[in-house]
Amino acid sequence: MHLAKLKLTNFRNHKTFTAEFIGDITVIVGPNAAGKTNILEAIHYLATTKSFKAKYDRDIIKHTQDFARIEGRATIEEDDTKDLELYIAKNPNFDNASIKKAKINKVPKALQKFAGTFNSVLFSPEDVEILTGSPQARRKFLDMLLFQISTPYKKKHAEYVLAVKNRNKILEKIREFGRGWDELGFWNTKVVQNGLFIQEERDKLFEYLKISINKYGKELNDEKTNITINYLKSPISFDRLAQYKDREVASASTLVGPHRDDFEVSLNDFDIAEFGSRGQQRAAILALKFSELDYFVATAKTRPVLLLDDVFSELDDKHEQALQEIIGLQQTIITTTEKAKIKDQHFQIIEI
Amino acid sequence: MHLAKLKLTNFRNHKTFTAEFIGDITVIVGPNAAGKTNILEAIHYLATTKSFKAKYDRDIIKHTQDFARIEGRATIEEDDTKDLELYIAKNPNFDNASIKKAKINKVPKALQKFAGTFNSVLFSPEDVEILTGSPQARRKFLDMLLFQISTPYKKKHAEYVLAVKNRNKILEKIREFGRGWDELGFWNTKVVQNGLFIQEERDKLFEYLKISINKYGKELNDEKTNITINYLKSPISFDRLAQYKDREVASASTLVGPHRDDFEVSLNDFDIAEFGSRGQQRAAILALKFSELDYFVATAKTRPVLLLDDVFSELDDKHEQALQEIIGLQQTIITTTEKAKIKDQHFQIIEI
Repeated sequence: MHLAKLKLTNFRNHKTFTAEFIGDITVIVGPNAAGKTNILEAIHYLATTKSFKAKYDRDIIKHTQDFARIEGRATIEEDDTKDLELYIAKNPNFDNASIKKAKINKVPKALQKFAGTFNSVLFSPEDVEILTGSPQARRKFLDMLLFQISTPYKKKHAEYVLAVKNRNKILEKIREFGRGWDELGFWNTKVVQNGLFIQEERDKLFEYLKISINKYGKELNDEKTNITINYLKSPISFDRLAQYKDREVASASTLVGPHRDDFEVSLNDFDIAEFGSRGQQRAAILALKFSELDYFVATAKTRPVLLLDDVFSELDDKHEQALQEIIGLQQTIITTTEKAKIKDQHFQIIEI
Repeated sequence: MHLAKLKLTNFRNHKTFTAEFIGDITVIVGPNAAGKTNILEAIHYLATTKSFKAKYDRDIIKHTQDFARIEGRATIEEDDTKDLELYIAKNPNFDNASIKKAKINKVPKALQKFAGTFNSVLFSPEDVEILTGSPQARRKFLDMLLFQISTPYKKKHAEYVLAVKNRNKILEKIREFGRGWDELGFWNTKVVQNGLFIQEERDKLFEYLKISINKYGKELNDEKTNITINYLKSPISFDRLAQYKDREVASASTLVGPHRDDFEVSLNDFDIAEFGSRGQQRAAILALKFSELDYFVATAKTRPVLLLDDVFSELDDKHEQALQEIIGLQQTIITTTEKAKIKDQHFQIIEI
């Protein structure tokens, strides 16, 4: 996987921005607020059709403009180069809504088909929130990874979310008016079928992460370090739905299933979010991110482009060295304010 | 304000830890997970009787131990040195509860009286969450500052929180059983009286912050930078309570007042949490923290001890320099993994 070119139009603070990426490692250097993170956001957008920063898609459109465009030329495999294009416009009728269009080699494609054509894995200082933030942040991490790796996962996830939404409406109708029980069975089936698929994929992911995160934990710290990751699954099944029926009607919400899943990361048996030092949290998130990259390679049989947003500023020398080693394995695009941190002068430097 | 000595027993990872602070600037250097942040947590605990990290007080007690003790000798004013002691023990009867005792010069004191005897202002990398986190995080920032500055604020805040809790119980009784209207008046008065006091103190604080944050914003960036801070007050009054009466009964909760307050920080008219770059967010939080320190000095007529937890790793050169300048103005205790970042060799170094 290699991104050769990127062209932005009206994306965030960039009226226009064009870059050619030469070689495997590119460093984007510039002062605060020059728009370094925005470039990585655009590249990640091209991979996932979603922003890792914006609440609404329209927020990525430059102020006073009506649309934004991201164009990229990516080598997917040898002899397979694709021109990718995403167009995001404000919806004149609905605030916060937007119009999104995708093209591959100038041919319009559905967003579902477009997403995952090109792949990237992002690492930013805010990633520590995967550990310390809400369960929602952890589910987002799982989904963003699995969306890129598995199109069926993405499809069934969308169906699951819709089914839960519709099921909750029925639950509310039952609570308010005492009727609708006959409609529940249909949505139960949808929720269970799609939910089981999602949890099987997550099971496979955690089986891999369990081994990988501990391996990296030992490499980054020492042999005595034991990092464990536990999938806190809220299992979905017809039995469980039957069991929670009354409580679900009372709260008009679906109380079990993948949308209630979570996971915890422990260091030598202590919850790292609650009891880990900041340094331990940074090391654990680095181990998790390395594992994410490995899982990608193992399952998708391709190496995604690695995007490192301003991460050197946060790491101590040992972790910095570990990161420098992994950089060489795939195309890597790095942002930094401190040119001095970049040790190898063979890297391509783009100053903005 | 000067902390001369600190002694910890069973505090976090420290079985025992003793330090004497000599001169105005002390740097605590050590590898990851040595317990650097824990030392600052203990000092801040001594000032506020609260942890900035732990969910429950008992979490600060070393694993397998039953109590923790923090002892400090502080010069409050010239010729006024006090021995401060806090003792936190597990409550054998209730999980997550704990027993807290305070002494000044070996004489037992109520926690209310103890808090604020000694003062500190803390700056850590997580402080950016004041901007990007929930309204709750922003209210906590306001309260932690005002608790230290004003004992009446702390007292009335506690009364307000209790009054809202009791009022909500009455609202629930009205919703469930249709009775309790006669009890509401009493709690309305409590909520309005204490709430008005809290919002007046917050008004004063924001009046100061408005000017100060913009001044520091210009110093840290350039003259064109305009940082504004807006107090998003949910005004409390008998009229507002009357107006929200039906909705409050329906939700069994108090919908207006200081516990719904928030604030926003904008850079050149854009919400910095939503649209600012990471660098801009760091600069804004630095400006906010400098303003916090200034407000302390202006109102409490004393300079609190400044605690800097691992902040150099996050700042670019310009902001680092600004921080180095402010360090000289009061006793400052700094933690870092990188000794090299500390430019002046006259600082006291404590290696752990």
